[in-house]
Amino acid sequence: MKLTHEAAGTFAIAPTPFHDDGRIDDASIDRLTEFYAEVGCEGVTVLGILGEAPKLEAAEAEAVATRFIKRATKIQVIVGVSAPGFAAMRSLARASMDAGAAGVMIAPPPNLRTDAQITGYFRQAVEAIGDDIPWVLQDYPLTLTVVMTPAVIRSIVTDNPSCVMLKHEDWPGLEKISTLREFQKEGSLKPLSILTGNGGLFLDFEMERGADGAMTGYAFPELLIDVVKLSKAGLRDLAHNLFDAHLPLIRYEQQPGVGLAVRKYVLQKRGVIACSAQRKPAAAISATARAEVDYLLSRVARVDKRADLAPKSSAA
Amino acid sequence: MKLTHEAAGTFAIAPTPFHDDGRIDDASIDRLTEFYAEVGCEGVTVLGILGEAPKLEAAEAEAVATRFIKRATKIQVIVGVSAPGFAAMRSLARASMDAGAAGVMIAPPPNLRTDAQITGYFRQAVEAIGDDIPWVLQDYPLTLTVVMTPAVIRSIVTDNPSCVMLKHEDWPGLEKISTLREFQKEGSLKPLSILTGNGGLFLDFEMERGADGAMTGYAFPELLIDVVKLSKAGLRDLAHNLFDAHLPLIRYEQQPGVGLAVRKYVLQKRGVIACSAQRKPAAAISATARAEVDYLLSRVARVDKRADLAPKSSAA
Amino acid sequence: MKLTHEAAGTFAIAPTPFHDDGRIDDASIDRLTEFYAEVGCEGVTVLGILGEAPKLEAAEAEAVATRFIKRATKIQVIVGVSAPGFAAMRSLARASMDAGAAGVMIAPPPNLRTDAQITGYFRQAVEAIGDDIPWVLQDYPLTLTVVMTPAVIRSIVTDNPSCVMLKHEDWPGLEKISTLREFQKEGSLKPLSILTGNGGLFLDFEMERGADGAMTGYAFPELLIDVVKLSKAGLRDLAHNLFDAHLPLIRYEQQPGVGLAVRKYVLQKRGVIACSAQRKPAAAISATARAEVDYLLSRVARVDKRADLAPKSSAA
Amino acid sequence: MKLTHEAAGTFAIAPTPFHDDGRIDDASIDRLTEFYAEVGCEGVTVLGILGEAPKLEAAEAEAVATRFIKRATKIQVIVGVSAPGFAAMRSLARASMDAGAAGVMIAPPPNLRTDAQITGYFRQAVEAIGDDIPWVLQDYPLTLTVVMTPAVIRSIVTDNPSCVMLKHEDWPGLEKISTLREFQKEGSLKPLSILTGNGGLFLDFEMERGADGAMTGYAFPELLIDVVKLSKAGLRDLAHNLFDAHLPLIRYEQQPGVGLAVRKYVLQKRGVIACSAQRKPAAAISATARAEVDYLLSRVARVDKRADLAPKSSAA
Repeated sequence: MKLTHEAAGTFAIAPTPFHDDGRIDDASIDRLTEFYAEVGCEGVTVLGILGEAPKLEAAEAEAVATRFIKRATKIQVIVGVSAPGFAAMRSLARASMDAGAAGVMIAPPPNLRTDAQITGYFRQAVEAIGDDIPWVLQDYPLTLTVVMTPAVIRSIVTDNPSCVMLKHEDWPGLEKISTLREFQKEGSLKPLSILTGNGGLFLDFEMERGADGAMTGYAFPELLIDVVKLSKAGLRDLAHNLFDAHLPLIRYEQQPGVGLAVRKYVLQKRGVIACSAQRKPAAAISATARAEVDYLLSRVARVDKRADLAPKSSAA
Repeated sequence: MKLTHEAAGTFAIAPTPFHDDGRIDDASIDRLTEFYAEVGCEGVTVLGILGEAPKLEAAEAEAVATRFIKRATKIQVIVGVSAPGFAAMRSLARASMDAGAAGVMIAPPPNLRTDAQITGYFRQAVEAIGDDIPWVLQDYPLTLTVVMTPAVIRSIVTDNPSCVMLKHEDWPGLEKISTLREFQKEGSLKPLSILTGNGGLFLDFEMERGADGAMTGYAFPELLIDVVKLSKAGLRDLAHNLFDAHLPLIRYEQQPGVGLAVRKYVLQKRGVIACSAQRKPAAAISATARAEVDYLLSRVARVDKRADLAPKSSAA
Repeated sequence: MKLTHEAAGTFAIAPTPFHDDGRIDDASIDRLTEFYAEVGCEGVTVLGILGEAPKLEAAEAEAVATRFIKRATKIQVIVGVSAPGFAAMRSLARASMDAGAAGVMIAPPPNLRTDAQITGYFRQAVEAIGDDIPWVLQDYPLTLTVVMTPAVIRSIVTDNPSCVMLKHEDWPGLEKISTLREFQKEGSLKPLSILTGNGGLFLDFEMERGADGAMTGYAFPELLIDVVKLSKAGLRDLAHNLFDAHLPLIRYEQQPGVGLAVRKYVLQKRGVIACSAQRKPAAAISATARAEVDYLLSRVARVDKRADLAPKSSAA
Repeated sequence: MKLTHEAAGTFAIAPTPFHDDGRIDDASIDRLTEFYAEVGCEGVTVLGILGEAPKLEAAEAEAVATRFIKRATKIQVIVGVSAPGFAAMRSLARASMDAGAAGVMIAPPPNLRTDAQITGYFRQAVEAIGDDIPWVLQDYPLTLTVVMTPAVIRSIVTDNPSCVMLKHEDWPGLEKISTLREFQKEGSLKPLSILTGNGGLFLDFEMERGADGAMTGYAFPELLIDVVKLSKAGLRDLAHNLFDAHLPLIRYEQQPGVGLAVRKYVLQKRGVIACSAQRKPAAAISATARAEVDYLLSRVARVDKRADLAPKSSAA
């Protein structure tokens, strides 16, 4: 049940669903969890840094994580526990594991600069949460401004046996995957699951470089699942054909800030969450943007019927 | 009891005292509160961003704030409520006010850039905590990377009547005080208390530019109190004489990161807190640094006997 | 001949071509210029900040600009004159205009934060270069970290009549275009050409939001030209069809750092420049990356024959 | 004549003197050079990053450096050659050495993050300028945002034998000096001159930690010289007494941005430069600030007569 370095496939990054008035929408949490399991995700990651986790109070965060965990009987749940301090990180990590989480995810705080600061931070984080909790190292320089070389990632993974997965979302990042896999071939890096994020924008080539799967929040996890599978099956052209059909929407959804609004809009359209509202401060999308997303969906649907969300659309 | 724009004098920024094992030291909270009241502070500010507030869990933060508030029967308490999200901010703010706090302090999150983002943020913060809570606007670009012009500060103060005080710690910042006071002379800015921080490094001239007092954590609040009073009394040379005697230590204590360790070391030496420990991640000071602080104390003591903390020094 | 607010269409951002040993390759400058004119660009922008302009000595920069200008008899040349100081900016701007440039482009230095700092900077820049030189305001927060609201852009354009064009590459940025065009409808903003950059990643919708064209360096300016024209002609689906065929490569080329290497690699493959070398410090691309680009080209070529660069492919 | 790791004492950072209209003031360059030699500086550093070097055109920069070098017959001249690109760096470095400079100084560009990026940058810089030019590594995180650990500094110094000096201005930075000297005791770091900057704010303790001297621009280099000498002679109290007398002014002059205006104002008052003007964009000081500096000077003068700059002041 616990996360290991053998984890692979698609872990969806779940948004936190709210009602229009800002309360947490438990029913939509349940539906989201069902949805991810039904379409074939291996897991779901909740309370990610780009979601609205920082907008939750500590007790709310624990409640959200627990609800996802309890509902997810068929798939693994990873809980984002990044926090300004280790006390809060430990508290959420222990509570999540007690509730049945598969592991936790930790991102570096933005003030880290030197290699030693970065490796030191994760050593202290593991001391804080305990070395019995499997965890995911999040590498996301665009948002976090912390740059980890492949050698630093190797140090962290080597020093902390409980680190079993890298959430890779450096940009550009293809060479980083190749270098890490090269480290493993030469024997200097232990087995490590690499799932890629960044909205899925480079999933096609990330798989070819050696990623084990995807961990991101694209509103069609089915696409991520299919591309991961096709790529692993060596069906390169088919993987790219499907990926390319979705790319215009992937790109649109990957925009910082507004991307989450797009994602929630699509998930609402798909009937997975009841309401696309965000807690304040919220990045809304305009009517024009919604129409652009609708247009993109209609174009994706020419190739992938699952994107056909038109109201009375007959034979989807 | 509530904070108003007439607040003046010295508000000490209190460190959060811990035991060696990282637990909160309640007895030292009590002693700190007594100490600040006895030496003549008008108030105390707790859970400041440069303290260790982010290292506390939400429940701990509330407990610390409440303990300070309950103990501070003679002086006002301001609670730092800056948080990554408005839910946590509101929660701590309401709890603090219910416990008897005089007001709260809010710093802008580091991602704000444009004037509109900054003014928009504080509008939403006030919506979140409620417009009945008097609050202090913290302006600290060196650490927060958010730059507020005098005109932006004026907008925030004008738009939000519950903003009654500016914690000024821009660097350089003397002209900013002059400009804000000029705004008031010309009638474009309502009355506003301005207390200055930045470790006290420019308190001598900040008072002359129009500050109402100090809000910072220098381990000798007596010095801040005296300089504020001497300066208000127009005794310029005396104010500078005393200030200059402390400046070498003020400068040493104002170093980012290590400064808090120096402050706790001196407060421990003074018998105000039991232990100088910080929660991890902690910036320790070396034996050499401690010896340097001791040397600086001995030099300050030549002018200000209150700094004479030498072990057997009997009747200083 | 000089740039006006009526400029529209596609302005290619030209790379600076070097020989393998780091010397400037004048013959390739000539060929690049011919190429851009032949495919139908309205202009070419040289010495852009993301190119290798900072790697040139002042005299080299002037020589490169002049060579492009002299060769470009049929299209306009805009010269990037962003510089750490106004003296160097003025010098390159005046020399470029004397040589026959249509205008210059100025990006804000990364240290600007407040609205007033930004508007003040451009006022001083115009004082420095002279108000007789038409110029392009570059808005590129991802790289420059300077965030300009639509209102700030309006101020700059209003205060400086010689500002005739916005190079828009905010991300996300679609709403910004809409807002600026809204300003013009309501009469608060004078006519302004808006060309979009950001590697072309959102050109499809940027045109629909009101952009006048593209200014970016994608190695197939023909695609930019066609999308701009199709979109202006109201042929929405056709525009998107063509755009989407190129999007996988556009995305690949838009990666920070490595993108320039991809661009030079493709331009070399197309026979436009002799050598893909960059001056140090250079971001090279691996053999794997080159193979990925080749694969992407082959896929684009299924829809757009111009991307068929396979070695012996004769009459494709 | 060339700089070696045995360099010690005080190297003044020279401002670039301008006329009121922004032209370079050659006569003041001559007077500055004489002044630094007369008071006892071992050297002078010109075109520093915090001065106005970026405001100069390439030809002007070379002319300024050359004029200082030619005039400085008794003291060494170090030329700041930091530049956005290696071509400009090389050009100024070679020209300066040909003119008779003792060495050059290089600061890292602000975009460097990882240890490997930093060491790689300096390796390429040395390739660019040639390994026969002695150079000073500038470590100034507050302004440059690049953080170098002691181990990274050791790598740079070890990999590049022509690196003979560290300009240390980390903040806080005392432990860094101690660590580097510890490296040398244990034999892992070759001999290296360490001069300290940061406006002199910590010179008292920096000398005690093992610095070889000062390299900064305080308007009374005599103070730097005396503190360095007293400290080296083991006269601790005397060193601190003198230092502390100047500290209020040192602190005032060390303010970012406005500090240079203060420095030029004092140097003009001392008759060393003709005009305190800066090239645009310039940080001016207000009449109030000038009066504050005058007041600080009068207070310093109570201990150090050299600071008595009062107009007709009789018995100085």
